[in-house]
Amino acid sequence: MKKQGIGIGLLGIGVVNGQVARVLEDKKGLLAESVGCPLVLRRVKVLPQDLSRPVVKEMDPGLFTTSEEEFFMTPEIDIVVEAIGGEHPAFEYLKKVLSAGKHAVTSNKEVIAKHGTELIAEAQKNRVGLLYEASVGGGIPLIAPLQNSLVANRISAIYAIINGTTNYILTRMSKEGMEFSAALKKAQEMGYAEANPRDDIEGIDATNKLAILASLAFQRQVLPGDIHHEGISRMSSHDFRYARELGFAVKLLAIAKQSENSIEVRVHPVFIPEDSFLAKVDGVYNAIQVEGDLVGKVLFFGEGAGAYPTSSAIISDVVTLAKIVVQGTGYEDRRKFNLDRSIKPMSEVETRYYLRISTVDRPGVLAQIARVLGDRKISISSAIQKGTDIQNQTAEIVLMTYPAREAAMQQALQELSSLGVVQEVSNFIRVEA
Amino acid sequence: MKKQGIGIGLLGIGVVNGQVARVLEDKKGLLAESVGCPLVLRRVKVLPQDLSRPVVKEMDPGLFTTSEEEFFMTPEIDIVVEAIGGEHPAFEYLKKVLSAGKHAVTSNKEVIAKHGTELIAEAQKNRVGLLYEASVGGGIPLIAPLQNSLVANRISAIYAIINGTTNYILTRMSKEGMEFSAALKKAQEMGYAEANPRDDIEGIDATNKLAILASLAFQRQVLPGDIHHEGISRMSSHDFRYARELGFAVKLLAIAKQSENSIEVRVHPVFIPEDSFLAKVDGVYNAIQVEGDLVGKVLFFGEGAGAYPTSSAIISDVVTLAKIVVQGTGYEDRRKFNLDRSIKPMSEVETRYYLRISTVDRPGVLAQIARVLGDRKISISSAIQKGTDIQNQTAEIVLMTYPAREAAMQQALQELSSLGVVQEVSNFIRVEA
Repeated sequence: MKKQGIGIGLLGIGVVNGQVARVLEDKKGLLAESVGCPLVLRRVKVLPQDLSRPVVKEMDPGLFTTSEEEFFMTPEIDIVVEAIGGEHPAFEYLKKVLSAGKHAVTSNKEVIAKHGTELIAEAQKNRVGLLYEASVGGGIPLIAPLQNSLVANRISAIYAIINGTTNYILTRMSKEGMEFSAALKKAQEMGYAEANPRDDIEGIDATNKLAILASLAFQRQVLPGDIHHEGISRMSSHDFRYARELGFAVKLLAIAKQSENSIEVRVHPVFIPEDSFLAKVDGVYNAIQVEGDLVGKVLFFGEGAGAYPTSSAIISDVVTLAKIVVQGTGYEDRRKFNLDRSIKPMSEVETRYYLRISTVDRPGVLAQIARVLGDRKISISSAIQKGTDIQNQTAEIVLMTYPAREAAMQQALQELSSLGVVQEVSNFIRVEA
Repeated sequence: MKKQGIGIGLLGIGVVNGQVARVLEDKKGLLAESVGCPLVLRRVKVLPQDLSRPVVKEMDPGLFTTSEEEFFMTPEIDIVVEAIGGEHPAFEYLKKVLSAGKHAVTSNKEVIAKHGTELIAEAQKNRVGLLYEASVGGGIPLIAPLQNSLVANRISAIYAIINGTTNYILTRMSKEGMEFSAALKKAQEMGYAEANPRDDIEGIDATNKLAILASLAFQRQVLPGDIHHEGISRMSSHDFRYARELGFAVKLLAIAKQSENSIEVRVHPVFIPEDSFLAKVDGVYNAIQVEGDLVGKVLFFGEGAGAYPTSSAIISDVVTLAKIVVQGTGYEDRRKFNLDRSIKPMSEVETRYYLRISTVDRPGVLAQIARVLGDRKISISSAIQKGTDIQNQTAEIVLMTYPAREAAMQQALQELSSLGVVQEVSNFIRVEA
């Protein structure tokens, strides 16, 4: 046991690590009791502009350094918490920490999604831990349960709502009939979407998080580049109206499935049955449903972001590692990630589809559309003709299909667009049962 | 590292441990990889009548013994899994295991609820682990997340649906308008309720589980006897009809709250808003909502019982302990349970109430009822008069109140019953917001 306490170093002092620093101070008694030894903040690596942050003013000025050298050379640091975000220099920093034989905790989804396998291998080599509970789902206990509590299971599927920004936007669109741009503006006003919201609304953030979950659940390296992703900007109030009429909710879902020979990983808007649990997850909440051979279906739900929940996850990782420092043993992690990724191409994925097509209002249009789909062996399960616009002589046709292959659907969509009677294929959305 | 493997002993070979034995066999490769060493079943303590079970016939006959002596004297056992259920002799067995310096895993909610504090202290004294993930919520990761992932949080409240039998019955009553006795019969036919269903329908099973959760979350000893509990047998189809009309679902909820000075723990039927997450938990599913100061609201959902999910939880506990055996360190658990229970008496609990009262059908009845409540400082938030029975000249009055103290309500209920115009107070149900 270290009498002088377990040394903590922070990389960055933004919203997340600012809160981590506050918890280390405010809850030091509780944490010392859990660990069996105090957790002592030793050093904080900052950028010059960070020094004006309010949280910095609350803290001992001697803790801060803008020098990488000085931070990494501080010998009394046992555990480093990285929360600077982004791929670089976070990757290089974490690698340095681990190869120096120190434990690391990170909330950085991008660096774990892209470099997790390499960083975990580096940690294993040095018998230190690299924990990243905060990287997906904010404070929801998720990574530890997947890694430990479900260890006896073969995980077959994950269905997850893991981006709060898009879920907030879709919720406003659904409940208030807003269009996408108005809902996005609202999300920005509320602080739920960034000024440049691209990473969130295009599904990139969810893709990084899915790469982390799929790698962990399947013990295979799944990279963000392996994941087909589509965003929510093409969703319109029409789609929400039809969804409701047909008994569905609209969600941006991150999906990972494992079959005998391959893995299916994708992030895109879906229709899901309105009475399913995931359909009820509204606003900035996240939910992650995991299916295992023994446990069946389990679901984890909570706030997916924010300084407080994220600090809850980070501190739990710090406590886990601090206990190992106290025990004086190394961190044991025997996972081997299969590097053969065998990702199923998106073109081979099968789902049901919802299509919304703008056509001229004339007899025989539906027959022409049905023929195009039929030629591609895509069967229609139901069709609604709605919203006839008498002035412009146009109609809106909504189709639901039986399961079809993505490749066939993409070809059909092209052919439909070029039909004389079709003005536009306004949207297509995959349906998950 | 033990070359000959980690020795496992099973106490009992019923539905749960039968499945545990199968998983140890079927997944031995996966488990050995996680632990770094094989898990080897060394001995199974059975009752003579167990020897005819099908799972026994699949296994090496040399593993079985009906002798306690022989089982406890087997030196190659490192971890014992107890799944015989009930208070005795499970308590004595677990105590014996722990005091002999062996780790223990149990799915037995009754023994943990009643003797957890003592058994954990015994385990701590011997630096061995006593894990009980399977005791609440079947395979849902819950105990480990509460103990580890939420370690930085002060838990303020738990709201839990933790009895599948009653939730199945309430779901049938809600969806199909069944009466209690018919729904219970259905549950028995489906194998979701036992021939003697008392422990489930009277809320005793949920009380044991809540004692475990509250003790863990608040680090205080909470015993089943501290928990006010009521069952679901008084629920009628009328209550479900009014609940729906008023925007509520009916659930048997286990509730634990922690305030500055005391703990509130109770199990009883409640009205909860129909758009809340817990309202959507149907059938034999369980869900446990936990509120912490940092993490906010998190919820865990899944199948709350069954051999497969339960074995998932047990094996994860076995793997956790097996890793510690491999490391050769003791199990470190620094928790201290506050023995000052300071349980808030039920009479001081405040909730809103739903009352259903059968009255004579005559002007001024509502005024008389309102006066009784008003005298006890209980305010009515809404009143419905329904179901006038012209032949018998009776009416049904349904009231919702503002928050009131239980003591005042109990007095009011007595006085209402003795009013001349009141035929019967047919039901009262607490409302949770």
